[in-house]
Amino acid sequence: MRNLTMMTDFYELTMMYGYFKEKVDNRRAVFDLFYRKPCCGSVYAVVAGLEQVIDYIANLGFDEEDISYLRSLNCFDEDFLKYLSELKFEGDVYAMPEGTPVFPNEPILRIEAPIMQAQLVETALLNIINHQTLIATKASRVVEAAQGDLVMEFGLRRAQGPDAGIYGARAAIIGGCKATSNVLTGQMFNVPVKGTHAHSWVMSFPSEIDAFRAYARVYPDDCLLLVDTYDTLKSGVPNAITVFKELRQAGHEPKGIRLDSGDLAYMSIETRKMMDEAGFPNATITASSDLDENVIWSLKMQGAKIDAWGVGTRLITSADNPALGGVYKLSAEVMEDGKCVPKIKISENPEKVTLPGRKKVVRIYDSMGMAVADLICLDDEVIDPKKPLTIFDPVNTWKSMTITDYTVRELLCPIFINGELVYKSPSLSEIQKNCEKELSTFWTQYRRMLNPHLYKVDLSAKLYRLREQMLRGDKAVETKVPELQA
Amino acid sequence: MRNLTMMTDFYELTMMYGYFKEKVDNRRAVFDLFYRKPCCGSVYAVVAGLEQVIDYIANLGFDEEDISYLRSLNCFDEDFLKYLSELKFEGDVYAMPEGTPVFPNEPILRIEAPIMQAQLVETALLNIINHQTLIATKASRVVEAAQGDLVMEFGLRRAQGPDAGIYGARAAIIGGCKATSNVLTGQMFNVPVKGTHAHSWVMSFPSEIDAFRAYARVYPDDCLLLVDTYDTLKSGVPNAITVFKELRQAGHEPKGIRLDSGDLAYMSIETRKMMDEAGFPNATITASSDLDENVIWSLKMQGAKIDAWGVGTRLITSADNPALGGVYKLSAEVMEDGKCVPKIKISENPEKVTLPGRKKVVRIYDSMGMAVADLICLDDEVIDPKKPLTIFDPVNTWKSMTITDYTVRELLCPIFINGELVYKSPSLSEIQKNCEKELSTFWTQYRRMLNPHLYKVDLSAKLYRLREQMLRGDKAVETKVPELQA
Repeated sequence: MRNLTMMTDFYELTMMYGYFKEKVDNRRAVFDLFYRKPCCGSVYAVVAGLEQVIDYIANLGFDEEDISYLRSLNCFDEDFLKYLSELKFEGDVYAMPEGTPVFPNEPILRIEAPIMQAQLVETALLNIINHQTLIATKASRVVEAAQGDLVMEFGLRRAQGPDAGIYGARAAIIGGCKATSNVLTGQMFNVPVKGTHAHSWVMSFPSEIDAFRAYARVYPDDCLLLVDTYDTLKSGVPNAITVFKELRQAGHEPKGIRLDSGDLAYMSIETRKMMDEAGFPNATITASSDLDENVIWSLKMQGAKIDAWGVGTRLITSADNPALGGVYKLSAEVMEDGKCVPKIKISENPEKVTLPGRKKVVRIYDSMGMAVADLICLDDEVIDPKKPLTIFDPVNTWKSMTITDYTVRELLCPIFINGELVYKSPSLSEIQKNCEKELSTFWTQYRRMLNPHLYKVDLSAKLYRLREQMLRGDKAVETKVPELQA
Repeated sequence: MRNLTMMTDFYELTMMYGYFKEKVDNRRAVFDLFYRKPCCGSVYAVVAGLEQVIDYIANLGFDEEDISYLRSLNCFDEDFLKYLSELKFEGDVYAMPEGTPVFPNEPILRIEAPIMQAQLVETALLNIINHQTLIATKASRVVEAAQGDLVMEFGLRRAQGPDAGIYGARAAIIGGCKATSNVLTGQMFNVPVKGTHAHSWVMSFPSEIDAFRAYARVYPDDCLLLVDTYDTLKSGVPNAITVFKELRQAGHEPKGIRLDSGDLAYMSIETRKMMDEAGFPNATITASSDLDENVIWSLKMQGAKIDAWGVGTRLITSADNPALGGVYKLSAEVMEDGKCVPKIKISENPEKVTLPGRKKVVRIYDSMGMAVADLICLDDEVIDPKKPLTIFDPVNTWKSMTITDYTVRELLCPIFINGELVYKSPSLSEIQKNCEKELSTFWTQYRRMLNPHLYKVDLSAKLYRLREQMLRGDKAVETKVPELQA
């Protein structure tokens, strides 16, 4: 297990030193980790990275080498370095389980800890959650576009470094990919690994058919041939069919072929015809080559005959949107008497105004078990599902809706309490199933490729009024918004 | 040191097993790692990642746990698993030193090794070089746009996982950033770390001026204040000036302020005026907030009064171009008698046709030491700088040029010979200086922001003819191209 304690922005340490010197180090603070803008053309994001956040927090601590390095910077005094050398995490962490669909402004993770500790972990938490949530979301879109076809993650060589490959593949599995090419991810998280051969295999033999025959000898029952090294339709597919016939004569059924270049719509339709006519209707066609959700969707609309999709660069980097932009904002301070003092960050840009207070997120389901809306409320608010629930749009507050016959579920689960880990991460395949199940509670209009319908994320009247009061300088304001449960 | 041997695409292992079973495992093969398309609006890329490639290759080897996992896949026989358990790298690696400007189709790295070993390392080599070269290139563009201003890498929280943050910051330093916010990168590579405080510092005090005063007490000689938590011009800058005056009265000079939102052109000009009028003309203005080379260039054109740039998300992810797209292609096989048999990958797309044979890259400098052109030639070609040199455009072959009074430099350096490391990586600051020096040998037209001039990368007549012959099926072809040195 790598210790990533030093993987932090320097300003976390200068601020910690500031808190230390100003003698406020014992004050507990509440921070929310959330994102503001949807990514990947999706109205939701898929939470991922919690398992690595847990490892990071559980291992938090500076070793002697770290302290020596920090001493060498001549910025900190010995008392502070001693404090750092003894630092352990002592706070509470609540988080949404991995695989949960999450919407803008909802806390994915809420941390309450002595402010110096809460500040220290900001950077790593953002790094891990921003990355994995981004890739899980992208994968979820790609899988949605593939409409039930097998989607495999193939992006390691173009990932932004080893971790982006390893944990990006992990996140892609959460988002619905069924396999990865990345052997290390397969080993670490017990997920299927897939792959056959590259162009170099074909090039290293005197001819394409020699290469195919050799491959068929080694993998008679798993023979999937890459057919575009020289000329797909004139050479690759005919040679593959020759070898498939030889295989069948020897009592083996071929798996199929892979296309990695060219016009995949045309090539797959022609290849399908050729394989069908040759008596191999069950031989599959796998496609790779700069795929993403839009290309897959377009290929499906064109009637491409593709059974499985190997998605690389554009998934593993989330190419059209390579950062989620999650932020970590102070929302409250806890006084020595336990009183929670809400905090707000004001901005000229209304979207950047934060939600004050210690909060929770509630998902409301109708009687069929389908998600109706999410509600961000203060942590001490209680909803009685026996009574009708009234929610309203936090921008256009005149838009409101009363719901009856519903159930509610709180999305933030306890992960650490007073520094003690109280949560056990499910296996990666359980997380994947959880994600599938959660997504199935959202109507397709929220998941469609183009212009998905906006899902309601409302604020409780209490939270709404608190924000309004803080924005307007603690003056009492008229806030004609309906109570949750009058 | 992490062992990344298992971080490979599964097809590298299935191909290795294929080679193993087909008894060709001792044949040496030559692979080139190169990219085809420029990135980041640049005509060149900046090589980065070699140090991590060296670590990877030097540590190559499967441990018992790896072998057990591979056994559990039921794809490989025990002979092969035994072979893997004893595998060490025994090949030659030539590479361009980090910081070298490299152009499309030039081998950044050339590997010659038993084909199974050369195949195994493909994925990790691509992953590492693609990532770091991308970020170094992006950083180089950002630094170019900043025209000598201080540029700092601030992207860790938005990087695609820990390595993307750690090694992305490393690459950014190679490309010319002078500091990073990432403490771990600072520790690992001995580079300056920078950072002051966040909005949360300000929010955690009863008022902004309390927060500024506290910061000034802790850092009287390094007081740089973030002024946009509430209202930059009405609150942040006036409060900062008040604290600056108090600091000066106490005998300290303030550093300056940081702007992290809003219209940076307007805000910086107004802030500059306010600080100048208050008697702080030396207080600096640092800007951050979704910067990249285009925003910086535009801000400079608008006369923004910004002294230092903290560049985050868009640098650390290379947001408009998040993958370099480097490839790794078989270029030759070495027969048992030592004869080198060139190999080619043909494609309908002419840009995807590979360059056959064991090759090298030569950079030609004029008498002033400025780069004139690069030449890709076969490894055994010798250029005598006492004789004129004739080069020609490999697409429009009628365009040729004869150069006299020049020097040549081979760009590929020996890194491993027969598995032995023969190269010592320079320190990161030496690499940064090397990059600066190398870039200074390119006229500004190759480095300008918009439409940089295309730099000549030509092929020797011998390599050109070899490719033509292989493309046209080994038939002798008329190739009216000039010899390098007639």
